[in-house]
Amino acid sequence: MSVTAPKGFRASGVAAGIKAAGALDVALVVNDGPDTTAAAVFTGNRIKAAPVLWSQQVLRAGIVRAVILNSGGANACTGPAGFQDTHATAEHTAAVLSGRASRFPVGPGDVAVCSTGLIGERLPLPKLLSGVDAAARALARDGGPDAAKAIMTTDTVPKTAVHAGEGFTVGGMAKGAGMLAPGLATMLVVLTTDAVADASTLDGALRTATAVTFDRIDSDGCMSTNDTVLLMASGASRIEPTPDELTAAVTAVCADLARQLIADAEGATKEIAIAVTGAASVADAVEVGRSIARNNLVKTAFFGNDPNWGRILAAIGTTAAQFEPDEVDVAINGVWICKGGAAGEDRSKVDLSARAVAVTVGLNAGEESATIWTNDLSLGYVHENSAYSS
Amino acid sequence: MSVTAPKGFRASGVAAGIKAAGALDVALVVNDGPDTTAAAVFTGNRIKAAPVLWSQQVLRAGIVRAVILNSGGANACTGPAGFQDTHATAEHTAAVLSGRASRFPVGPGDVAVCSTGLIGERLPLPKLLSGVDAAARALARDGGPDAAKAIMTTDTVPKTAVHAGEGFTVGGMAKGAGMLAPGLATMLVVLTTDAVADASTLDGALRTATAVTFDRIDSDGCMSTNDTVLLMASGASRIEPTPDELTAAVTAVCADLARQLIADAEGATKEIAIAVTGAASVADAVEVGRSIARNNLVKTAFFGNDPNWGRILAAIGTTAAQFEPDEVDVAINGVWICKGGAAGEDRSKVDLSARAVAVTVGLNAGEESATIWTNDLSLGYVHENSAYSS
Repeated sequence: MSVTAPKGFRASGVAAGIKAAGALDVALVVNDGPDTTAAAVFTGNRIKAAPVLWSQQVLRAGIVRAVILNSGGANACTGPAGFQDTHATAEHTAAVLSGRASRFPVGPGDVAVCSTGLIGERLPLPKLLSGVDAAARALARDGGPDAAKAIMTTDTVPKTAVHAGEGFTVGGMAKGAGMLAPGLATMLVVLTTDAVADASTLDGALRTATAVTFDRIDSDGCMSTNDTVLLMASGASRIEPTPDELTAAVTAVCADLARQLIADAEGATKEIAIAVTGAASVADAVEVGRSIARNNLVKTAFFGNDPNWGRILAAIGTTAAQFEPDEVDVAINGVWICKGGAAGEDRSKVDLSARAVAVTVGLNAGEESATIWTNDLSLGYVHENSAYSS
Repeated sequence: MSVTAPKGFRASGVAAGIKAAGALDVALVVNDGPDTTAAAVFTGNRIKAAPVLWSQQVLRAGIVRAVILNSGGANACTGPAGFQDTHATAEHTAAVLSGRASRFPVGPGDVAVCSTGLIGERLPLPKLLSGVDAAARALARDGGPDAAKAIMTTDTVPKTAVHAGEGFTVGGMAKGAGMLAPGLATMLVVLTTDAVADASTLDGALRTATAVTFDRIDSDGCMSTNDTVLLMASGASRIEPTPDELTAAVTAVCADLARQLIADAEGATKEIAIAVTGAASVADAVEVGRSIARNNLVKTAFFGNDPNWGRILAAIGTTAAQFEPDEVDVAINGVWICKGGAAGEDRSKVDLSARAVAVTVGLNAGEESATIWTNDLSLGYVHENSAYSS
């Protein structure tokens, strides 16, 4: 049920002709209240798409009535004209919702906008605005799955998740299959809840949740221009969870969606969890995990089912984390093939035939730990990202 | 003529059976003087191979009589036993040279050691020591080309360069085809000169040269455990160039070898020069260039002959360099397809059919510039690094 699992939300996904072949490409999610509080986190990339610049302004007030999303074009690096396109989309969405599909007036400043697709090209605005009309007509209490389909790009499956809290629900949808790096992967994520929560509480829950979920997946080290994670609360459950309860529920949905993003990463044949333990700080553990996750020689070795721990040590050695080179241990799928910075158990004991791979690094420098999720670097990744402009 | 082009040097390359199939795998370069001054730079990786740890100690005195090199094994992450193997190799080389092949006694502390190949496995020491014997017997004034062949790993061609200064000569050989990243690429480089220069002058010339050559190539973003660039001076020309003259000659040889490394990078189909101009500082220019060079989506786009400037902008946006997003220009092969952060000339004008690609980034934030050389990310790279353990 995706974003429509919580009470107070309607959604839709329609085909507006932005993508070829009649695929769904415009999604709309509307919060019918009674509350319309919201929070969001955006890409850390300094080159931000027009819809990100727009939505950052919208979120300043902590109120979002609706979010309009399109695939088939990122509307990034499109200059002032591209920003005007986003503005026009929000204006049109607000007008349509105020006119017929909503219970109370909506202003353009209450409408968040998300886009995903190729950078550098203008969106076909007439098609998009017609899509807004169609999406508004199609809004339904069970429209979550269609909305999740309409935001897909190179995704092979839609990604949705639901978590039931004590008397309230959190639902979510996500898109993303490449350009997945921390400081948000390339993703659009819309989360909804019928919990009662003010914007500040939502913001705290969302930042805590993304820090340990979306910010710890790193498929290809590439950070996009459009990443947005939006959390909207309707209050329709009349239940006000504690901040900890809300954070736990939001984190559960984010973790579920993050795993689905890694599972569907472009061309990937392996899903690799890199657990860095014994670190002097969480920041050290994250730095070491990311360095391994981003190393093309490590990633190609896993694609070749080669437990090449030497490449892992070379990646660790490029970090500034606290460790002594002769005290580092590395296990792959439970086999400690590197002990004290040198060869340990026999590498032939490592079974890499399964899709899931567990790498454990013991830095022996402290008590902290963190896990980074990544993929292998496959022939399929290169093919997919070289054969098509995206 | 490689390292034996300057007067005062002999070299050899022999097959010791470390690599399969009788390939050359042990190289020896001897400085017959009259001077034996030397300088070196080593990998910035904190996980350093045993020969790097050894050679760092040797270089403290600024004297190197000979360097013994092997391919077929990196002797990295091999613990104290691996360090003993390096020590034994230097001892044996010194003894053999003192006994018969040299004009004056050589101590083990005058012998630098370099190794390259798979990380984490011990070298076959008896084979290596027999190889030292054979290499000493084979030493010749025209042995440079054989030495260059003996240090190859996944290299498809040996890499040598010579530059004639005013009355003196600089020669060099290099190996490296993958794990090429700044802070030295994965490379072993031996440079020789018959100029008269003290160790401090050599050190200054070498650091200046590597900073603008080897440190500005970035094939796959991966930094190795074994990188060494060694410069030895025999003084046999009796000419003492000014530090600037020496630096210019050393830089010329390093630049030549660096280009050869990029040209032979694993699986590469493109050699890409990324010139970043209009930067507020050289450091900014280098950071932007490296960010583009390391971006897998940019690299796969070039493999696919796709002038995807949006991915280049997304890579620029992840840096901390000074720039305004709406003032960035990007040209690919002379076509300014991005002007002011948005679409410029028609992308169909860009011809990417040639192996050489020139990317120019105009940050419009200052007067500084730097060029980073890189490769595309190809199916061949993934195949080569997944199908074989290296």
